Amino acid sequence: MPVVVMGLGAIGKAVALAALRSPEVRLVGAVDTGPQLKGKPLSEVLGAPAGNLKVQGLLGDALGRTRGAVLLHATSSRLPQVMDRLLGAVRLGMSVVSTCEELSFPWLRHAEAAERLAREAEEAGVVVLGTGVNPGFIMDRLPATLGAVCGEVRHARVERVVDARTRPPALQRKIGAGLTEQAFLAAVEEDAPGHVGLVESAALLALGLGMDCDDFEEELFPVLAEEEITGGAFPVKAGRVAGIHQVATALSEGQERVRLELTIALGAEGVGDRVRLDADLPVEFEVKGGLAGDVATANLVVNAAPRVTAAEPGLLTVLELPAGR
Amino acid sequence: MPVVVMGLGAIGKAVALAALRSPEVRLVGAVDTGPQLKGKPLSEVLGAPAGNLKVQGLLGDALGRTRGAVLLHATSSRLPQVMDRLLGAVRLGMSVVSTCEELSFPWLRHAEAAERLAREAEEAGVVVLGTGVNPGFIMDRLPATLGAVCGEVRHARVERVVDARTRPPALQRKIGAGLTEQAFLAAVEEDAPGHVGLVESAALLALGLGMDCDDFEEELFPVLAEEEITGGAFPVKAGRVAGIHQVATALSEGQERVRLELTIALGAEGVGDRVRLDADLPVEFEVKGGLAGDVATANLVVNAAPRVTAAEPGLLTVLELPAGR
Repeated sequence: MPVVVMGLGAIGKAVALAALRSPEVRLVGAVDTGPQLKGKPLSEVLGAPAGNLKVQGLLGDALGRTRGAVLLHATSSRLPQVMDRLLGAVRLGMSVVSTCEELSFPWLRHAEAAERLAREAEEAGVVVLGTGVNPGFIMDRLPATLGAVCGEVRHARVERVVDARTRPPALQRKIGAGLTEQAFLAAVEEDAPGHVGLVESAALLALGLGMDCDDFEEELFPVLAEEEITGGAFPVKAGRVAGIHQVATALSEGQERVRLELTIALGAEGVGDRVRLDADLPVEFEVKGGLAGDVATANLVVNAAPRVTAAEPGLLTVLELPAGR
Repeated sequence: MPVVVMGLGAIGKAVALAALRSPEVRLVGAVDTGPQLKGKPLSEVLGAPAGNLKVQGLLGDALGRTRGAVLLHATSSRLPQVMDRLLGAVRLGMSVVSTCEELSFPWLRHAEAAERLAREAEEAGVVVLGTGVNPGFIMDRLPATLGAVCGEVRHARVERVVDARTRPPALQRKIGAGLTEQAFLAAVEEDAPGHVGLVESAALLALGLGMDCDDFEEELFPVLAEEEITGGAFPVKAGRVAGIHQVATALSEGQERVRLELTIALGAEGVGDRVRLDADLPVEFEVKGGLAGDVATANLVVNAAPRVTAAEPGLLTVLELPAGR
């Protein structure tokens, strides 16, 4: 299965490396529009052998004469920013697996764009899917899979705690670490520090558990350092922001049915992923230490590529992916 | 989605009750060939309201004029014993979801029967699937789903420990509880105490993780009571058998890639389901307290019914089921 990677930031590079390691796919091209990358040998960008591939500025150039390739897309979290790219790939007859967080359940915030993607994908006979570890797995696909052992699930709760010190410096800055509480709250007004995709996960999980939810809410809070935190990309003084605590809920007639709690903070305690399904057969599940972000996302994207080409054309969600390779 | 339940033993009754509770399916009939059940009101058999349904001896009578119904089948663990029933349903144009343990991966022990089922299901345009909690979920589908976050999985280990005191008396007897070690070993020769389906799970998990395994092995050991065990259906003296410890492995060129360890014993310690995937991104997870058998199996069967009718006709495995309802 030939694949092309688009976007060579931290995640895109991890996707390219995972594609090079996978026996199921063959990396035939890489695209990045950044002037500092265009034309460079991919092996130099990745710091790993990548044949003779060069980074291309245009998807068509990266694709060459290859037919039936899947685009592994990793640029932006926001759907409107990537629509042109996604549609461009679909019009080249390519199925797309993207890490764009809003694409994991695009009907929620961008119903019109979702309809358009679905229509064009069906017409082109290809599949478009948004996935990653979060959204796309730990707070939606995995707990929905677990829900298959339950009858009606009255309430689902997923808690994910990440110590941001183990994540790249860019992420540590993105969650507002080091800011004053005031500066954090001002940044929230501009939608900066939050994790994109949490409310999409809540909607996906509600759907995957067969809940008929009609309202989806999201809130973001700063986590403040109780004492100075060291060990991250930079020290954070006591009283300053250490990271985020974000909560997304799905409700049915005013009643909460799904609650997702995400904490990403320097020095966060209780690191791990925990699921609790309240049902006839209650289920409690924990991933020890939690699923680390970039590598898990890269593997999910690469492992999804052969699956999507076997699916019916259209706009998919991860709920439709099978369990096996 | 209309469904008919066949087999009203402990699991079949649980399936019927789960079907009555589910908003996705509608129970339209029940079949059992036992003379003590035939003709009885289903509500009496279940001890719960079940409309005016009566237990029928023949599938055709239970089905009546209903079209597009799925058979939920729960009689025997062994495929040869249920082949006629499965083929009978397929020839009536019914898709089948069965708890028959060997059907979870029938190619392993009954390749010819599997081919025949696959061919007849395809010709009839229906789907046949074997599922349940074990085999069908905790040691195969769920760890295979988790494997999507990994690159190559070098080794997978699943450990399931069940305290048999929490399970029905019939199961406590089946695992040899109370026997002398000698009587247990004699019974093993007749294949009596073991759990059916463990090696099928090993083969399924290897497949789901993309491993190319060529050898599958299974061993069964007695667990001996260190002191008298009470609290079960009957007390077990020190030195007598408390239950089973069963190990199934999948190997590739002589190297172990999958190891499943199942302990079902009265008073077993460390109850729970634990998975460890050894890969670029190692994954460790646990279902606290483990997934209880009959109710989990019943819900999995009922939740699979609408999924199989949406799938391509043929003989499926749980690896092909989607995550969501």
